[in-house]
Amino acid sequence: MSNELHLDVPKDVPWIDFTREFDAPVAAVFDAHRDPDKVRRWLGPHGYEMDVVHWEFTDGGAYEYVHRDPDGGEYGFRGSFHTVRDDETVIQTFEFVGMPDQVALEFLTFEDLGDGRTRLRGRSIGRTVEGRDAMVESGMESGMREGYVRLDSVLR
Amino acid sequence: MSNELHLDVPKDVPWIDFTREFDAPVAAVFDAHRDPDKVRRWLGPHGYEMDVVHWEFTDGGAYEYVHRDPDGGEYGFRGSFHTVRDDETVIQTFEFVGMPDQVALEFLTFEDLGDGRTRLRGRSIGRTVEGRDAMVESGMESGMREGYVRLDSVLR
Repeated sequence: MSNELHLDVPKDVPWIDFTREFDAPVAAVFDAHRDPDKVRRWLGPHGYEMDVVHWEFTDGGAYEYVHRDPDGGEYGFRGSFHTVRDDETVIQTFEFVGMPDQVALEFLTFEDLGDGRTRLRGRSIGRTVEGRDAMVESGMESGMREGYVRLDSVLR
Repeated sequence: MSNELHLDVPKDVPWIDFTREFDAPVAAVFDAHRDPDKVRRWLGPHGYEMDVVHWEFTDGGAYEYVHRDPDGGEYGFRGSFHTVRDDETVIQTFEFVGMPDQVALEFLTFEDLGDGRTRLRGRSIGRTVEGRDAMVESGMESGMREGYVRLDSVLR
């Protein structure tokens, strides 16, 4: 039971690579990324509430959501779904509205490991190496780690 | 009258930077990127026809078009418009359908140089350095160069 987030932040290139395994079948892990009522139960750091403003999970669709921290702070995010291939791949843009135009491009792939287990692989590419570094320094890793622990619960 | 395309393909990072100046005001250059009836008159290499299948030039919109070469070969392209800020910025995804999932993220900025002149700056970020290199080797530069020469005509 040690499904850890593995994050790789290579020097001098603008991306972050990560992997995370889940004790759940691909269809369930994918559905938890597609269904906004599920997404809002796990995405983001512990203690945050998530309001989904817009969610069109399809090729050429777009999304918008707001995270609220326990002190009432609000953080808006938005992006476009470039590619959605069921149980396989999502390619999307991602922007924290508080850092306008620092848009990232994210590639997610869902791998069937057999025995009802799934590996999620991700690459998030920033506009610049500095922008990528700022994203890492903003506490992205702990937010991801906490979100995926909650996703484990959603999947159970 | 030497408005050349300047392309910078730095080693070991996945992006291409370019600049191109135009003897036309920002509003006109931007409009030639927004209006699909104008876009189809200049985008792509010489001798190609362009059919716009879908074009929703707005935040969260999407596009799809097909280039036809003189021998009848067809090349599909599609993407999402993440950000459209009039006369200023376009941030969009870009995919050649013949190389599925090799999606790039493109940042275009339109700068007013005064005297009715405009500088277009672009950065196109690929999924990998190798993917970026493959795009460059596919003749991207000559296609862009030829397209911008036609854009000069559209603007006149």
